[in-house]
Amino acid sequence: MALINENYLKLKTGYLFPEIDRRVKEYQSAYPDKKIIRMGIGDVTQPLVPSVITAFREAVNDMSKSETFKGYRSDLGYEFLREAIVKNDFIARGVDINIDEVFISDGSKCDTGNILDIFGHSNKVAISDPVYPVYIDTNVMDGRTGNCMDNGYYERVIYMPCLEDHQFVPEIPKQHVDIIYLCFPNNPTGMTISKDELKKWVVYALENKAIILYDSAYEAYITDPTLPHSIFEIKEAKKVAIEFRSFSKTAGFTGTRCAYTVIPKELLALDSKGQAYPVNALWNRRQSTKFNGVSYPVQRAAAAIFTEQGKIETKQVIRYYMENASMMRRGFSDLGYKVYGGTNAPYVWVKSKNNLTSWDFFDKLLKEVNVVGTPGSGFGPSGEGYFRFSAFAAKENVSEAIERIKKMNI
Amino acid sequence: MALINENYLKLKTGYLFPEIDRRVKEYQSAYPDKKIIRMGIGDVTQPLVPSVITAFREAVNDMSKSETFKGYRSDLGYEFLREAIVKNDFIARGVDINIDEVFISDGSKCDTGNILDIFGHSNKVAISDPVYPVYIDTNVMDGRTGNCMDNGYYERVIYMPCLEDHQFVPEIPKQHVDIIYLCFPNNPTGMTISKDELKKWVVYALENKAIILYDSAYEAYITDPTLPHSIFEIKEAKKVAIEFRSFSKTAGFTGTRCAYTVIPKELLALDSKGQAYPVNALWNRRQSTKFNGVSYPVQRAAAAIFTEQGKIETKQVIRYYMENASMMRRGFSDLGYKVYGGTNAPYVWVKSKNNLTSWDFFDKLLKEVNVVGTPGSGFGPSGEGYFRFSAFAAKENVSEAIERIKKMNI
Repeated sequence: MALINENYLKLKTGYLFPEIDRRVKEYQSAYPDKKIIRMGIGDVTQPLVPSVITAFREAVNDMSKSETFKGYRSDLGYEFLREAIVKNDFIARGVDINIDEVFISDGSKCDTGNILDIFGHSNKVAISDPVYPVYIDTNVMDGRTGNCMDNGYYERVIYMPCLEDHQFVPEIPKQHVDIIYLCFPNNPTGMTISKDELKKWVVYALENKAIILYDSAYEAYITDPTLPHSIFEIKEAKKVAIEFRSFSKTAGFTGTRCAYTVIPKELLALDSKGQAYPVNALWNRRQSTKFNGVSYPVQRAAAAIFTEQGKIETKQVIRYYMENASMMRRGFSDLGYKVYGGTNAPYVWVKSKNNLTSWDFFDKLLKEVNVVGTPGSGFGPSGEGYFRFSAFAAKENVSEAIERIKKMNI
Repeated sequence: MALINENYLKLKTGYLFPEIDRRVKEYQSAYPDKKIIRMGIGDVTQPLVPSVITAFREAVNDMSKSETFKGYRSDLGYEFLREAIVKNDFIARGVDINIDEVFISDGSKCDTGNILDIFGHSNKVAISDPVYPVYIDTNVMDGRTGNCMDNGYYERVIYMPCLEDHQFVPEIPKQHVDIIYLCFPNNPTGMTISKDELKKWVVYALENKAIILYDSAYEAYITDPTLPHSIFEIKEAKKVAIEFRSFSKTAGFTGTRCAYTVIPKELLALDSKGQAYPVNALWNRRQSTKFNGVSYPVQRAAAAIFTEQGKIETKQVIRYYMENASMMRRGFSDLGYKVYGGTNAPYVWVKSKNNLTSWDFFDKLLKEVNVVGTPGSGFGPSGEGYFRFSAFAAKENVSEAIERIKKMNI
């Protein structure tokens, strides 16, 4: 009899965003004439920039002619894209990364989940709270946790609370862990980490032979020049870190799908006898066997982000979203809310008032003023009482949402 | 200390195609002026058809304007594509499949590998020999096998030899198994299965509560009207099968990336207490958590395959490849080789002469006449002494390759 992977039964109901979707749909079908403003899911709204569109079109044309048609190519990505990444995202910042340390994929969600394939089940995993739910759920599915306890935590996971009095940056674990998830600029809090703070994590990982899974999907939103865009800006980080990057937020690729993962050749992990293996080679094997590469026209579109014109255009779009973030920050501050994030990240993290829970605040916003945000508790127990607003909306909607919220009775 | 997934250490050297690539590169760099004809990797060579290109272009245009821009959508695929699939690939053949039983993905290689995520490790797996290497390797990686033995077989896997005297169709296992891989039209042998034979497998699966993973990536190449295109043409198969389909070979999408998997709602699997769960819901959860859907322009391009004009155009391309297959069949038959496949599949399976091993035949072909094929032994021990030729080449190359082989001293 075919048996299921019973770890799936440990998962708590619904992934956060489907649940939001369900509540919004339910409300909308009861009140079909209400105009709902969505600032919940972190999804971009601005179109692809002209340079990207031009390259995308040209590549589609390539596919129409025998001489330029592309079939299977490297499962790991075209060299033209990996070279542009290395040159612009790393060498330009003084970080020496080689193209065979860069793996092109169709999304960081996929990569952060699939990366677990190459690690053993006995690794102790440390995860921030609140956190992007995918980090937890994929560990549950993969059998690296126990059951979910009453407090919302899974057994066997080391949670690292991100609290207001520590600027929502987790503290270094007191115990030994093997795999650590870090995400900066952070989703959901929109907060960042300084080079000095990040260095402490690298030192911890070196001492503990731990691996840091560093999610840097929002680095393009950093405005403060002292903040690190890549963990590899920290000395010796190549010995301890994997970095996930995405074009989703950098260039509006949420519906176009392209991302990349950097695994330095120096990064080693051990077998149970203590022998060391390069993680890069394991991931290469995983991707060659279970992945067929990203669509050629999509890779061409992604490479256009790195042209001079492409850089100018994508920066304009980012500026547009960051003006939304400023507007939100101002709006909630004026109303007496405590507001975090939103200066180096497209997320604004708002503390609810009057001890309202996150989902209560969600329902109130949805029903009273038809505005959708993301309940902080959906990202973990320490997110309770907070709310995430995404700046990826049309400016006029953000402005209207704030006007509506100002009229709310709270 | 971070530990690796040690199952990766059990993998035999190199995935087949990288090894072919390595040998070809080595030869080509020693003899840079030799014109090598590649009929090895099953990669299409003809461009995307005009209907597909037109839809692809339109969708790229959609991405350039706010009003038509698409960000995140269903991780499971656009309804327009799932509806076209259901209508054309199933209802048109009298098979009742619902759109929420269809999951769009970026490739069948990914899906056939990732599907293992949702099944327990103790399932007994039955795999044909020879076989598409991904089925084996992904089971090894996932810990569902023991070590590789001297005979090339992995411990704990039930191998099903596909032999010449049974037309390369495997025989029903004598023992109980839980998960069965079947692929028809077959890669690598190019052979097919009749409805009556396939029915026996469905009956076995019903009796044993087993699940059949049915890879139907080459169904578009079937010319014999009595052969099944889908396992769901067999009564009650919806209770026991998952079907993998791809646009890679149907419409030249190897570099464009789009495929789909059908998991009927009737299909159940058990937990260790014997409670049944719908596999569809498990896969839905897996994909929602670890996948972000296929690029919107690619899905639009795929949907164009199902328009009236798209169908005419893709059939023309398939006919082109099948003429290559006929040419190969004739060529090798004329030379006294035993030839299989190539009438309902784009692969021709040739038995070597003079007891030459598959890799010896590979090296001989490469070095003497600069033709690349795929060694049958790369697909498993029972493939030894055979060779796979792919019809996905330019006609003039196939014709030249055959002329060259005719002059070979063998």
